[in-house]
Amino acid sequence: MTAADESSVTTQPPVRRDTVGRRAGRGQLSVDELVGRAREGDPRAVARLISLVEDASPLLREVAARLAPYTGNAQIIGITGSPGVGKSTSTASLVTALRAVGKRVGVLAVDPTSPFSGGALLGDRVRMQDHATDAGVYIRSMAARGHLGGLAWATPQALRVLDAAGCDVVIVETVGVGQSEVEVAGLADTTLVLLAPGMGDGIQAAKAGILEVGDIFVVNKADRDGADQVVRDLRSVLSLGAQPGAWRAPIVKTIAHTGQGMDDLVAAIDKHREMLAASGELTRRRRQRARDEIEAIAVTALRQRFGDVHGHADLDSLAALVAAGENDPYTAADRIIAAI
Amino acid sequence: MTAADESSVTTQPPVRRDTVGRRAGRGQLSVDELVGRAREGDPRAVARLISLVEDASPLLREVAARLAPYTGNAQIIGITGSPGVGKSTSTASLVTALRAVGKRVGVLAVDPTSPFSGGALLGDRVRMQDHATDAGVYIRSMAARGHLGGLAWATPQALRVLDAAGCDVVIVETVGVGQSEVEVAGLADTTLVLLAPGMGDGIQAAKAGILEVGDIFVVNKADRDGADQVVRDLRSVLSLGAQPGAWRAPIVKTIAHTGQGMDDLVAAIDKHREMLAASGELTRRRRQRARDEIEAIAVTALRQRFGDVHGHADLDSLAALVAAGENDPYTAADRIIAAI
Repeated sequence: MTAADESSVTTQPPVRRDTVGRRAGRGQLSVDELVGRAREGDPRAVARLISLVEDASPLLREVAARLAPYTGNAQIIGITGSPGVGKSTSTASLVTALRAVGKRVGVLAVDPTSPFSGGALLGDRVRMQDHATDAGVYIRSMAARGHLGGLAWATPQALRVLDAAGCDVVIVETVGVGQSEVEVAGLADTTLVLLAPGMGDGIQAAKAGILEVGDIFVVNKADRDGADQVVRDLRSVLSLGAQPGAWRAPIVKTIAHTGQGMDDLVAAIDKHREMLAASGELTRRRRQRARDEIEAIAVTALRQRFGDVHGHADLDSLAALVAAGENDPYTAADRIIAAI
Repeated sequence: MTAADESSVTTQPPVRRDTVGRRAGRGQLSVDELVGRAREGDPRAVARLISLVEDASPLLREVAARLAPYTGNAQIIGITGSPGVGKSTSTASLVTALRAVGKRVGVLAVDPTSPFSGGALLGDRVRMQDHATDAGVYIRSMAARGHLGGLAWATPQALRVLDAAGCDVVIVETVGVGQSEVEVAGLADTTLVLLAPGMGDGIQAAKAGILEVGDIFVVNKADRDGADQVVRDLRSVLSLGAQPGAWRAPIVKTIAHTGQGMDDLVAAIDKHREMLAASGELTRRRRQRARDEIEAIAVTALRQRFGDVHGHADLDSLAALVAAGENDPYTAADRIIAAI
């Protein structure tokens, strides 16, 4: 297979979204042409470019180089929170609100791949069907590949595709509470932390480490018992960490499935964005993001060399020695590094 | 400060646990002496060794080398689950059950550091006070340092300290659901996934990606409404992924705060451990863990060189170019790698 074959994509509809794969024969597109079509809003070209970066295609570098001049315009919004707080419904509702003011919106939903379901259990995606036929919305479910490398590495590249494709806003939704939302906060200009009544109290939220990453807090399911208590607990905990002159993260009450509170949320996002731009924090965050991205790519490349230089067997035999207590991991790591 | 000063530790009681720091003057101990004392069960020596690895002391390599011959004996149990399911209470209750059969137990509680609290909000630690005066239990709260590197890197080294110090069992408790429990599963011989009624249904659990890492499922708060439904949902989802001949993860019902079900849990852990040993899976898991550890150390060392070789300014200027769309992150990463 040649590089041209690898980049080929049919132009024959109908093709199911996100499955535009390698196709030989007519209608082969170069990376340049794919980027051109993505910028014109062709969802198949966007899907193909994301697949190229997600699969670490040999064309990845060419894709990255061609996209670079068009990046840096999209506003990146991160959404995180515990399972069950209504992240997917809130994302769908936020998309509706943003579409109402004419914004082009991309959504990256980062889900761990479950061997049980292959993602099929994730019924939440269905709620996005309202937007499935809207050409101003591009939705992509990213598989987090069961390892930390997944989100850290592929998601920023997929973000670049959506940014270059002309999305005004890209929403990155992550499931889970733990380390992952620290990552989403690193990717996003504005991070929304969702809470809901009955999902654990303020102290539990603090414990999960999600408070410090929130630029805006959303108390969803605001029509349920206990919502006001969540707001009070949150306000009380947030006041402990308040810094004079710093951004004070607002708390917005929503009922995502009816859309209630979404206008307030959009207003809070706009206000945060203005603060970021005026204070220079936007530039700082974006440089930090680029820095993290460069580091992640360099680390991945070096990690691959651990295998290339030694062969799997060698790292494995070092690991066997360490597991047996016959070597320590630092000495083993020195040997790996010495060889690359 | 000399290396000898760095390793110094006072032998004068009383010293608060986990705060045995650098002390000049009398009673300085070498790494060899510290390891010897830790093996005799001196909690201050254990604390000092963990601090040395956690702070990436210059003595880290010496510590790792001295510990290596004594490692590989402890059984590592991971505990994970959403906030509010009762992980800390379950850990405390499991410690009680293990102490009742005479096991020496180490606990590593991995908590994200909150800038609001510095950990002070984490009232759960208080529940461990029952064990605070028991010389057969060593409890350490690890700060996850706000980045993925934290757990991936320092926790395995702290595990080695507790293992070498003669703990029969080390429990690693992680808060959060997301990427972090994938890591704890990589560290542990046996991973317990905790659920509780009212914390989200089976589909939410599947979505959070925690099902595939569980060797044993614990439905805590079994006296509450909905506990049986959680068991049924879980059983139904687990049956989807069941492989003939493979370990079928049992579901154990507990009421952690009364200790109910803990004997069943200990029995399930023992059974899993026997399966691991008999099937060769224990050796495979431990080699994989050693491999991950070597890789993490090598990556950290290489990442430090990104700074050393270029100076911060250079990585920063590359990041500024990437953020401005004037360069792509792959080309930037190539330049970083070329220089190390």
